[in-house]
Amino acid sequence: MQFRFSDSLKNLRPSEIRELLKYASAKDFISFGGGMPNPLTFPMDDIREIMDDVLSQYGSLALQYGNTGGLNDLRTEIKNLVLETEKIKTSEQNIIVTSGSQQGLYELAKVLVNPGDAVITEEPTYVGAISAFDANKADMHSISIDNEGMRTDVAETEIKKLISEGRRPKFIYTIPTFQNPTGITMSLERRKHLIEISKQFDVPLVEDNPYGELRYSGGRIPMLSALDKDASVVYLGTFSKVMCPGLRMGYTIGPEEFVGKFNLLKQALDLSSSTFSQYVAWQYLKRGIIKKQIPKSIDLYRKKRDAMLKALDEYFPENSSWSKPDGGMFLWATVDSRINTTDMLKDAIQEGVAYVSGNAFSPARSQANSMRLNFTFSEENQIYRGIEKLGNLVQKKVGPLQSN
Amino acid sequence: MQFRFSDSLKNLRPSEIRELLKYASAKDFISFGGGMPNPLTFPMDDIREIMDDVLSQYGSLALQYGNTGGLNDLRTEIKNLVLETEKIKTSEQNIIVTSGSQQGLYELAKVLVNPGDAVITEEPTYVGAISAFDANKADMHSISIDNEGMRTDVAETEIKKLISEGRRPKFIYTIPTFQNPTGITMSLERRKHLIEISKQFDVPLVEDNPYGELRYSGGRIPMLSALDKDASVVYLGTFSKVMCPGLRMGYTIGPEEFVGKFNLLKQALDLSSSTFSQYVAWQYLKRGIIKKQIPKSIDLYRKKRDAMLKALDEYFPENSSWSKPDGGMFLWATVDSRINTTDMLKDAIQEGVAYVSGNAFSPARSQANSMRLNFTFSEENQIYRGIEKLGNLVQKKVGPLQSN
Repeated sequence: MQFRFSDSLKNLRPSEIRELLKYASAKDFISFGGGMPNPLTFPMDDIREIMDDVLSQYGSLALQYGNTGGLNDLRTEIKNLVLETEKIKTSEQNIIVTSGSQQGLYELAKVLVNPGDAVITEEPTYVGAISAFDANKADMHSISIDNEGMRTDVAETEIKKLISEGRRPKFIYTIPTFQNPTGITMSLERRKHLIEISKQFDVPLVEDNPYGELRYSGGRIPMLSALDKDASVVYLGTFSKVMCPGLRMGYTIGPEEFVGKFNLLKQALDLSSSTFSQYVAWQYLKRGIIKKQIPKSIDLYRKKRDAMLKALDEYFPENSSWSKPDGGMFLWATVDSRINTTDMLKDAIQEGVAYVSGNAFSPARSQANSMRLNFTFSEENQIYRGIEKLGNLVQKKVGPLQSN
Repeated sequence: MQFRFSDSLKNLRPSEIRELLKYASAKDFISFGGGMPNPLTFPMDDIREIMDDVLSQYGSLALQYGNTGGLNDLRTEIKNLVLETEKIKTSEQNIIVTSGSQQGLYELAKVLVNPGDAVITEEPTYVGAISAFDANKADMHSISIDNEGMRTDVAETEIKKLISEGRRPKFIYTIPTFQNPTGITMSLERRKHLIEISKQFDVPLVEDNPYGELRYSGGRIPMLSALDKDASVVYLGTFSKVMCPGLRMGYTIGPEEFVGKFNLLKQALDLSSSTFSQYVAWQYLKRGIIKKQIPKSIDLYRKKRDAMLKALDEYFPENSSWSKPDGGMFLWATVDSRINTTDMLKDAIQEGVAYVSGNAFSPARSQANSMRLNFTFSEENQIYRGIEKLGNLVQKKVGPLQSN
């Protein structure tokens, strides 16, 4: 007997990152692939203490079913957190706890997108957003990025065009700060322009901010949610890059009507996120562990970023270029236009080093000679050796091409 | 600015159970509402020990991102578990770990159902299945239940009719053992008939088995997955009723092609289930804690079931009837046909007792004078008092009706 599958997955491609995960823990393998925080940053002793206390004090509640919207005490702490870090003013009923921010992305698309509806993204953009939007058959219109982030002038033209065709986009999705995959931060001017566009053309904004706390240089730029209280913005947050990814804790902040839809859908998706993980995240915030962990992560990651930038200078061929991120976990390298990084990945893995190919992040499939390089997971000496290997590989590929 | 929501949630109703959750922890409130295991059954000391060991021995892996399909060691233990308990022969690549079995239900509908496709369910059936199927716009054809479970003769007629209309159902969904909400177990003959129907009409089976281990009387009846190795069966399992619900751990077992689709979708849904929860579930199985916990749960729940049956005998009016389940967590009571249990719920909550109204479980909305009563969560004396209150309420409602 054959299963007759629905059409719903027909646009979905398997994630290259998911496949590369298996290499991350392989011995002597250098992984610039996954967006994995360094386990040295996990506050292991604090988490052990918190888990023990949660079981002693709240065991019968923490191991039981919980509210779909999330633990109220955790939502209060999240409210305080975003106020303190990003100056975002919100309240508990505007917050819903999600099973990682990936669930927020899926829910976002599911509650807003009818098959074929247009949405605006950055080009390139987060691969998990592409898969969440594809799973809901969104028609992605991706807007190129320069050193100041999304080209909002291009976005404006595209939105006008779509509206003239009767296809007003359902939302504009952006990762304004330390963008995934490029590491680029959107300038204040562009942020203001984006809000103007959103208001003028009646298209809500969605900002994803997984890395905001991981700043190694430069000054903080206000998030869209903090810039204009009258703007329609949905904010996606996560504990995967600060606390740890393995508890799968994220959150979405938005207008109450919107959060209500999320809640209704989440009842069908997974009833609620792990009650236990929520108690742990609550205590992690309440005890201020986050304030001890972040400076440590920043110290560690800044060195790794600097190491990777230095290694790229040393080992990558002259006609390559790369971003110089002020924070986050990634930089974006573009090499000779005759190289296809998807093809080159097989050779790289042979050499014991992995990255994610540019087109994995490209709704337009226009990033064939770029790659995303994660600098947070590997040791510094691995970073030098890995970039050397990749530089040599690029050199070797370009050599024969040049002699043609 | 208004959000323009998609059509995807238009069939979804908020879950009555989710709303009743808030009463479950209220003091002096008697909750027969949620399907909550009794926290006395949570193996608290073992879980504390396991969590501590997991952090010591696997901390940097257990708090990190994991495979979408699930921890391999956990899948091996699940394979052994279903072989030992249900004689189901499977292998690791046929198993995918889910964030509770609710996620399995959502994935099932998403990968198989195009909007408007027919599916077969029981009448009444699990409210979470209704919401997962509604969220994917399945057209549910629900088949009535008697004391031997789903009326497979009625199912056969319905399937024939649908096929004659060119609308072959995408699957048949059943909870064969200790059905939710009725507590009824499908007879062996009906199970065999269902497999025949599935083969003859080329419609895959989906069996949901959250309660199979919680048997208080009678002998085990083989699951569909164990009865015929050539049948196309998807099996949904969970750790919410044995270990605890708060870690949100479930699993789906099915043909490899099917599990592959699940995996692809899960990348978009939440990347992976909590790595930490998976390590805990793995050790919970590996250390045999499950074998200590289940007999304790059975002892506790059998007494509560007996108490509720006795209380119903004593306090419910003569023209009421109810199921006598051999296991699980619920029984199903049907009262005077002039009573609407959805309306009566407000009065019951006033009296400090909650149940879930019949129509919450009814795709056909034909269970207006029934109610689901959970017997696992409350104390025995609460069970007597709660059933007395409900009996009186029914009596009071019928009284005036009879004098009309």
